[in-house]
Amino acid sequence: MNGARSGFFLVVDGPDGAGKTTLVKRLVARLRDVGIDPLDVRQPGGTPLAELARTAALDPQYEASPLAELFLMLAARADQVAKVIRPALEAGRVVVSDRYDLATHAYQIEGRRLPRDRVVEANALATDGLRPDLTIVLDVPAEEGLRRQAHDGKAPDRIEREGREWHERVAQVFRRAAGPGVVHIDAVRSPDDVAQAAWDIVQVHLAETFGRGTG
Amino acid sequence: MNGARSGFFLVVDGPDGAGKTTLVKRLVARLRDVGIDPLDVRQPGGTPLAELARTAALDPQYEASPLAELFLMLAARADQVAKVIRPALEAGRVVVSDRYDLATHAYQIEGRRLPRDRVVEANALATDGLRPDLTIVLDVPAEEGLRRQAHDGKAPDRIEREGREWHERVAQVFRRAAGPGVVHIDAVRSPDDVAQAAWDIVQVHLAETFGRGTG
Repeated sequence: MNGARSGFFLVVDGPDGAGKTTLVKRLVARLRDVGIDPLDVRQPGGTPLAELARTAALDPQYEASPLAELFLMLAARADQVAKVIRPALEAGRVVVSDRYDLATHAYQIEGRRLPRDRVVEANALATDGLRPDLTIVLDVPAEEGLRRQAHDGKAPDRIEREGREWHERVAQVFRRAAGPGVVHIDAVRSPDDVAQAAWDIVQVHLAETFGRGTG
Repeated sequence: MNGARSGFFLVVDGPDGAGKTTLVKRLVARLRDVGIDPLDVRQPGGTPLAELARTAALDPQYEASPLAELFLMLAARADQVAKVIRPALEAGRVVVSDRYDLATHAYQIEGRRLPRDRVVEANALATDGLRPDLTIVLDVPAEEGLRRQAHDGKAPDRIEREGREWHERVAQVFRRAAGPGVVHIDAVRSPDDVAQAAWDIVQVHLAETFGRGTG
């Protein structure tokens, strides 16, 4: 079912509180500065169905079982990939996503201890095989991420309510993530330093993909 | 993760309009008549999360993509199996469910033409391997089922809005369903005749499971 692709799919991922949302905003601004009109999205979310699935998965009132949480995340991802991300890539756009499937490895496989092979298969079905061109992983110790989260004023969701040991296991998945197109950035630095390091990497990959400089 | 089981898991499935809901009610009454207190459930549904997932999958306003529809159905099933069905079976109860995973073969694999092997795997993950002890399939021609549906006064959901050819393909999956514990009943007969035929079958299976007569 994969259609032709000509855009660039950039994912920013990492533990809660790592600074993903801030970095996505900075990268979008940098891309605009060089004349690129990116589409920025977040997961789970981005379509009415995906936002509803996000609520069902994360709002404590629904007490999602671990498998229900997984399948709601996959429903949200499937809907957004089919309706938003893949069409944008096929139209040649740069898509910047706050989280993608690395988060499923961290939170559902490691955090919830669901069976790895079957979850990986189910995720491949949900994404219809769509892989990021580049995944930037923000590395922060779980404790630092949780400390930053505590200052944002919102009530914690089901995942944020988990304990420190749980978040440390999750953070390790992000720290150890490796593979084609996966790069790590030390996110214990200032947002300016993180954004500059990420932009240096993005420029190289965009130039390789589109065959021209962007800086 | 499978816990010990001592109850009996009975599923009634078939095309829309086959008379599943009526038959479940009749079977529940018959079971009560012989001193059994069954738990009756419907899929998708049965927990607050599963009802929300059902809405997202079936309400036309959410325009679920085929894969999102699948994963919402699996989220609903996973949540209900974990919180309601498996605990009831482990407590020794008879569970009567209006639909289970045969419906996924019919509507999502055949109707939406999703890849069979991957969907079967994802479903096995969602159910944590829980199989019905007995599945009663109500056989009606798609046209007869659709005609009956047209008289129930509710607005059609996303699946009910599909055309006759689509429902005919779906009905064929139900007609051809076979395997351990799958039995078919001709549902073009009166509700009384259908209920009696189903009860005759259920009694035999319950006696085999619980080692005593129920009639």
